[in-house]
Amino acid sequence: MSDVLSKLNDILGERKNNADPESSYVASLHKKGLNKILEKVGEESVEVIIAAKDAERSGDNSDVIYETADLWFHSLVMLSHLGEDSGAILKELARRFDLSGLEEKENRSK
Amino acid sequence: MSDVLSKLNDILGERKNNADPESSYVASLHKKGLNKILEKVGEESVEVIIAAKDAERSGDNSDVIYETADLWFHSLVMLSHLGEDSGAILKELARRFDLSGLEEKENRSK
Amino acid sequence: MSDVLSKLNDILGERKNNADPESSYVASLHKKGLNKILEKVGEESVEVIIAAKDAERSGDNSDVIYETADLWFHSLVMLSHLGEDSGAILKELARRFDLSGLEEKENRSK
Amino acid sequence: MSDVLSKLNDILGERKNNADPESSYVASLHKKGLNKILEKVGEESVEVIIAAKDAERSGDNSDVIYETADLWFHSLVMLSHLGEDSGAILKELARRFDLSGLEEKENRSK
Repeated sequence: MSDVLSKLNDILGERKNNADPESSYVASLHKKGLNKILEKVGEESVEVIIAAKDAERSGDNSDVIYETADLWFHSLVMLSHLGEDSGAILKELARRFDLSGLEEKENRSK
Repeated sequence: MSDVLSKLNDILGERKNNADPESSYVASLHKKGLNKILEKVGEESVEVIIAAKDAERSGDNSDVIYETADLWFHSLVMLSHLGEDSGAILKELARRFDLSGLEEKENRSK
Repeated sequence: MSDVLSKLNDILGERKNNADPESSYVASLHKKGLNKILEKVGEESVEVIIAAKDAERSGDNSDVIYETADLWFHSLVMLSHLGEDSGAILKELARRFDLSGLEEKENRSK
Repeated sequence: MSDVLSKLNDILGERKNNADPESSYVASLHKKGLNKILEKVGEESVEVIIAAKDAERSGDNSDVIYETADLWFHSLVMLSHLGEDSGAILKELARRFDLSGLEEKENRSK
């Protein structure tokens, strides 16, 4: 699974630059612009929260997995819209946790 | 960068099961419970949205990268709290985009 | 304007109990259930935040007023779904600010 | 209760213009700026959603009332920061529901 995000970067870049907004959901989001993409990021985060509360009660995690994938996907579309990709996020997570070593070094500024 | 999420799964599992809530931020979140973790997911999604609006204006993506890493991180803590990890998200993204092939098959149900 | 919320309580109660979900948006939300209503509360809060960032830049507050009205409206539908109305919110705000007096007494617990 | 929002407008205006950020929570929010105020609006909306899910399960509405009051309060601070007050929201709600008449006329554009 380790190269899923890398392949997804390629797909998102291709959809942003070459796809038809009539047939590609990703291209249609770029055409609608940043506000629409951010509305989707916000909606999906709320759906994650609601699904997690339901999973807490039911013990069934399938919806929360589905909604978290939606949240990550739309945050990747947002990054793509701004000229970034998942590499920047993984690099920041690696820096924060010093993933060459063993210690938790969050270096959290807040 | 492809194994950052895999290494992070190991760290998050170790922090959940063995770390001291006094010294580990991750362990402290698990101790406070799901509602506190979901509040953090919500807060970080709002900070992503605000940072993206500022990036749109300034052209500087550093804050939006930092905040998106925070959002992914807290969503991973949530998944860990529910007994899942990033593998479930990558599997769902791979399924959705048929990453063995070339076509965008989102199979979106909504 | 002081009785708008009071009149709205009456309308929301009537729509909840007697209206046809086919023709009334409020009745359709109640039929879809709490999760759908909460998704709308979340969506509207994100639209408020985006509209406020745009207002900061443009100086035009019309969208942020529209979206805040949407947020308040959907939070009132949520309260109605749970058997409450705006009276409970106004009572809590009055208690918090001691609106019989002049001092700010927020008594905030967090 | 009908004049609570009107009195709160006066308090919020006074706090914005004359209060010391060291002693007034409202003045401290204005000093920190719009982004901080919007983070609070986002946080409170998430706390409303979590509290509503817990209320659905427990039947106890006290937390959801408390958190909705917090959400309305912080949205009023946001409006004050942008030079508006609750009158603009009530006017928009009255327009939308034609509160001089009996019919639900939402005139929703989306």
